[in-house]
Amino acid sequence: MKKIEQSLKRGRPDIVHFALLEALGSPLNREGLLQVYVHTLTDHVITVNPNARLPRNYSRFVGLMEQLFEFGGVPPIGTALLTLRHQTLGQLFQEIKPSYTVAFSRIGKPKTLEETVSELSKRKKPAVLVGGFPQGHFSENTLKLADEVVCLDYDTLETWSVTSRIIYEYERTLSLPEKRLRR
Amino acid sequence: MKKIEQSLKRGRPDIVHFALLEALGSPLNREGLLQVYVHTLTDHVITVNPNARLPRNYSRFVGLMEQLFEFGGVPPIGTALLTLRHQTLGQLFQEIKPSYTVAFSRIGKPKTLEETVSELSKRKKPAVLVGGFPQGHFSENTLKLADEVVCLDYDTLETWSVTSRIIYEYERTLSLPEKRLRR
Repeated sequence: MKKIEQSLKRGRPDIVHFALLEALGSPLNREGLLQVYVHTLTDHVITVNPNARLPRNYSRFVGLMEQLFEFGGVPPIGTALLTLRHQTLGQLFQEIKPSYTVAFSRIGKPKTLEETVSELSKRKKPAVLVGGFPQGHFSENTLKLADEVVCLDYDTLETWSVTSRIIYEYERTLSLPEKRLRR
Repeated sequence: MKKIEQSLKRGRPDIVHFALLEALGSPLNREGLLQVYVHTLTDHVITVNPNARLPRNYSRFVGLMEQLFEFGGVPPIGTALLTLRHQTLGQLFQEIKPSYTVAFSRIGKPKTLEETVSELSKRKKPAVLVGGFPQGHFSENTLKLADEVVCLDYDTLETWSVTSRIIYEYERTLSLPEKRLRR
């Protein structure tokens, strides 16, 4: 069962690709207010440099990922845009110490994104967990890291869509759209 | 100049791919409240059936587009999910008759998405125009179709990102997130 469950969670780097494009291109990221990590099923953590400009082309993104898993960082020389470590999500959390964590899952408590993010934005160092797998749910160990598990919609929302919405809602809470237009 | 300008606007079906995935997967679309068209530089209009489930894989999406341009519709037999016609954007607008149209462009009037969509949602049949080209701006003819041209941010926002944000903001204005959770 575990095996089937896990097999549903693999093999979709396209999900990570879209979600990273949404995150890195956002005004929130450009303001230096976002740090993205990708945790894989094999307990690797990819740290994404906020300045990384990822290829839009999927094949080139896959090529980059292959290079990352081979060399542990890309580009192999110079400032790394992506770095890879063998780390559990628990270990990552011990390191970055978020003050409050919300995981998004259809099996969570029904709550709008507006309400969720409004509360989250009052925390010192908030973190969100968005699943990047095509089917299945977060593992028990992952859910233990969350202070709250929130269901935004009873239908599945795609990873990239949730990512984009959380970031935009967060920007809105900070009045970032207005502030950036006023500069 | 026109030629260079146009060459900047071609050859990026990945932009359309991402944007369509954002649009079609949205709760707004699932509620039947969204109709998406893609207008190409060659004056083709693709009508997207709201029930279309597009391939997540880019190569398969490109394959689908090739099939569409060959047969004028996909799938070639049965209910079409994508149909292709030779049509200018002006002709499309004469047909669908939007009551108010907002085009998003960095050269527009600075205005937040919140304000823009709040006004838009009061219209009977609102339409938005989002550029799907990597560089360059809307043509003069396209801008003429818009009642208003809005700049959301002085930095470029990616097409898929703007698409996702407009749709989410529209859902928010309709209180769709709450309504869907209450069902």
